Amino acid sequence: MSDAALDFYFDFASTYSYPAAMRIGALAQAAGVTVRWRPFLLGPVFKAQGWDTSPFNIYPAKGRYMWRDLDRICARLELPFCRPDPFPQPSMLAARVAHAGLDDGWGEAFCRAAFAAEFGQGRQIADEAVLADLLQGLGVAPEPTLARARSEQNKARLRAATAAAERAGVFGAPSFVARGGELFWGHDRLADALAWAVRSRPR
Amino acid sequence: MSDAALDFYFDFASTYSYPAAMRIGALAQAAGVTVRWRPFLLGPVFKAQGWDTSPFNIYPAKGRYMWRDLDRICARLELPFCRPDPFPQPSMLAARVAHAGLDDGWGEAFCRAAFAAEFGQGRQIADEAVLADLLQGLGVAPEPTLARARSEQNKARLRAATAAAERAGVFGAPSFVARGGELFWGHDRLADALAWAVRSRPR
Repeated sequence: MSDAALDFYFDFASTYSYPAAMRIGALAQAAGVTVRWRPFLLGPVFKAQGWDTSPFNIYPAKGRYMWRDLDRICARLELPFCRPDPFPQPSMLAARVAHAGLDDGWGEAFCRAAFAAEFGQGRQIADEAVLADLLQGLGVAPEPTLARARSEQNKARLRAATAAAERAGVFGAPSFVARGGELFWGHDRLADALAWAVRSRPR
Repeated sequence: MSDAALDFYFDFASTYSYPAAMRIGALAQAAGVTVRWRPFLLGPVFKAQGWDTSPFNIYPAKGRYMWRDLDRICARLELPFCRPDPFPQPSMLAARVAHAGLDDGWGEAFCRAAFAAEFGQGRQIADEAVLADLLQGLGVAPEPTLARARSEQNKARLRAATAAAERAGVFGAPSFVARGGELFWGHDRLADALAWAVRSRPR
């Protein structure tokens, strides 16, 4: 194994995870980095910091800035952007579906589709019908997939990803973890994280 | 007036303000942007968010990450870096001296000297003797300057800068405000802020 590798921790509710998820595939491929997509839940991480919702809701000045900043970022990247309502969207079901798909080869495409639906079109990703529609668009049978997403085994995987994020020191999303536990936080650290993964590749 | 202009809000205690302050002069000059240096106090801004110290102390995972991130940033920029102890350093006196100097033409050089002493050498910027030493290094007489820094008029200026930061929506440092109130937060937005200032220049 001489792969440059990076763990990509994200939550479907997380605003800055949207541009990161839309871009990481192509950027990692160009850099020769293998990315492990790790959807997790920010909720327990925030709860450990004493927050019962997004800090962007708790701290209004920070929230106002984030929406404006994301407007600018998406405009520059030519990504459509609309503000999810409600924010944050409940992301557990989407995360469970993603974990099911990451085994089957359609997980990354599903993640991009879910982010695009939520932040590009303002669709409700907690709505099972929306997720079924996205799955159908990927040629994946919705009903058995949603059932599998809700299996105990699959729920345990999402819990494991969240626990792994916490062990890695993750406190927000998106976060990127390179070999040796090197942590990068935020969409604006994506290029740095990829460069670090390349430099720390075993020779 | 057809100047591209940017307000640069920073606190001497703020970690990410260090690389921003060391770099903004040269970068702004190269971009043709006039920077107004606005030292302010994060304390009242944090207090309004319910925090009685730096969020990097309140949220340990965030704090650990910040120190590592700043290590990496300073290494890349070839800036010496050591962790101030205690952190955050009380920054009020340094900010008052800076306001006195910004009128007299030595303010920006003092700001760089204070940041370099604090984050490059681990010196105590709340110590009047340290500030006197920095002033002497700039050829500025310490005693009358420190007296002027403590004048009511000068204290009022620091309060005014802090109030202006809050009105501009500043919630952390460094922050940059371009024409029309466009706000950018963080050392990692410095290049974006300068580019925005250039694009939004009156023609």
